[in-house]
Amino acid sequence: MARVISSRNLFSFIKSAFVATGFSDSDAEITADLMVQADISGQAGHGIFRLPQYIKRLQEGGMNPTPKFRILKQRTATALIDGDNGIGHLVMRHAADIAIKKAKKCGVAWVGARMSNHAGPASLYTRYVLNNNMIGIYVAVGSANHMPPWGGTDLLLSTNPISVAIPSGVNPPIILDMATTVAAYGKVKTLLQSGGQMPKGWMIDKKGNSLTDPAKSGDGFLLPIGGPKGYGLALVFGILAGTLNNAAFGKDVVDFNADNKTVTNTGHFILALDIEAFMDLVEFKSQIDIVWKEMKSSKKLPDILEIRLPGENLARTIEKKKALGIEIPTPLFTKLTQLADELSIPSLT
Amino acid sequence: MARVISSRNLFSFIKSAFVATGFSDSDAEITADLMVQADISGQAGHGIFRLPQYIKRLQEGGMNPTPKFRILKQRTATALIDGDNGIGHLVMRHAADIAIKKAKKCGVAWVGARMSNHAGPASLYTRYVLNNNMIGIYVAVGSANHMPPWGGTDLLLSTNPISVAIPSGVNPPIILDMATTVAAYGKVKTLLQSGGQMPKGWMIDKKGNSLTDPAKSGDGFLLPIGGPKGYGLALVFGILAGTLNNAAFGKDVVDFNADNKTVTNTGHFILALDIEAFMDLVEFKSQIDIVWKEMKSSKKLPDILEIRLPGENLARTIEKKKALGIEIPTPLFTKLTQLADELSIPSLT
Repeated sequence: MARVISSRNLFSFIKSAFVATGFSDSDAEITADLMVQADISGQAGHGIFRLPQYIKRLQEGGMNPTPKFRILKQRTATALIDGDNGIGHLVMRHAADIAIKKAKKCGVAWVGARMSNHAGPASLYTRYVLNNNMIGIYVAVGSANHMPPWGGTDLLLSTNPISVAIPSGVNPPIILDMATTVAAYGKVKTLLQSGGQMPKGWMIDKKGNSLTDPAKSGDGFLLPIGGPKGYGLALVFGILAGTLNNAAFGKDVVDFNADNKTVTNTGHFILALDIEAFMDLVEFKSQIDIVWKEMKSSKKLPDILEIRLPGENLARTIEKKKALGIEIPTPLFTKLTQLADELSIPSLT
Repeated sequence: MARVISSRNLFSFIKSAFVATGFSDSDAEITADLMVQADISGQAGHGIFRLPQYIKRLQEGGMNPTPKFRILKQRTATALIDGDNGIGHLVMRHAADIAIKKAKKCGVAWVGARMSNHAGPASLYTRYVLNNNMIGIYVAVGSANHMPPWGGTDLLLSTNPISVAIPSGVNPPIILDMATTVAAYGKVKTLLQSGGQMPKGWMIDKKGNSLTDPAKSGDGFLLPIGGPKGYGLALVFGILAGTLNNAAFGKDVVDFNADNKTVTNTGHFILALDIEAFMDLVEFKSQIDIVWKEMKSSKKLPDILEIRLPGENLARTIEKKKALGIEIPTPLFTKLTQLADELSIPSLT
């Protein structure tokens, strides 16, 4: 059972909720817009689903509704910004703006952030860079540790995701958005709700045995892609997005699902790369169209209907959800109705 | 059976071989030094093992012994260089020098290269950046396609590797150097020589069945790490290192194992990130030592003796091989003796 809500109403509701917890109008709009973008992109685990948790964190003092961003250090092509414990969406949108501006001049820019928070899906920020005709790369320290170092059992690493967005010509842009684990933790949670079992290879328990019951996920941990390789990626991504920015990494990472009060000091970085520093933009886009065509026309394995490029279905999903609305599962809808009461704002309709 | 050769003699032999095929003394020294570094680092598949092939390519006109590098485009933090069909080692050492210089000023720099060739292991160049107290990131288009897009069977992608090198304080630096496939193709070749079978998950055939006999590797292809995720990484790395630099990618990639004549137009990029643009260098290194300690002290899975960090054993391997010499398997030694005769240079001793 689910209610279908228009993206416009979703936006208004999220905006009202943030304004009611102390956000300025414009900050509430930027955040609501990014969260709706997550929902209409089919990344439901990172959209309005997170709102009750964000609001709780704001109410219990774990997140600052009126952050003042500061540039702690900068050179012509880099910056380190302090997010003043604001929501990650605002911090990383601001970081992306700085990166785009610097990359226009220098060709490339790398902007790191500390004292930030959960920012939703990684591709929100690379797509923003992409809209400026640049290539975007984003990496974050995940907001809860679900993985040990390879061979270990202590949860010291998160799913530390990466997104890369690359513009193309007549085809949709290539948008990679992936965790460095075989499955993101959200997928485990979704299976728990739907009553399904996990495939082997997603998780193991502390004795090294395969773990397939999502209800027992607390007894084990996520496995990295490619074994030690994915561990290596999660480690170096965590250092680049966390340690280098003086943000939390390793045992300092606060589980933001379990704790609404402790400052998370989340770290991320965004890189903007100006295509025109390497190649004429139109020529590059037509080259990417050739890559598209080559990949799509490959012969296929038996039973495979279609070869896809990362992000291929995004435009279609967005169009569909913009036209038909976003499905809100009943348990979430009930939660959001309670939230509306609590904040004295109009209910979601 | 193997012969053990000192790194000094290995260097002299490689240098002589390149001088005999037209390299300048200094170019021969830089290339020989980097190839010996690969061998003493335990990356035997990328060291002197490749020399006969490089020499053949030089002799048959597929590679230019006297390249003149040109900067095709540049901004303050980026450059695109044309390697004039020189060996990748020289091109990427040059690219790294430019990146380091630009990053010292701008904080970060991204240098792409086209018209290059095979450059040995990815970590040679990130370690070079690391020696300048910076973080290095290197990505290349591999020199032969061994992987289709996910769900396909046409070999359009290579193992497109990434290396990231991060300095630490009292511990060895963290050096990730990995293919985006479960196994690098060199590992398949090694198993073919030793007569072993491949574990399931390395390769499948064109019908999607597991392929474990390395003698049949030509009937199938390598699998990416994390399934579609590794495919996504190989794809975007290939675009960033290849397409963006107007270098070969997709079906244009020349199989340099099978073809010594055709210009490969290999693409790579190197990124240098100046730690001091974000944090005091000493403080950063001590933070990385804390990361080291945390990972190493994690509780372990049963039967796991030690948790390792990427690159942990490198310093030990180098020390050992510097002291004891490098083992050259007899078939390779025979090939190198023939090469010496052919080039009229002193044999390897």
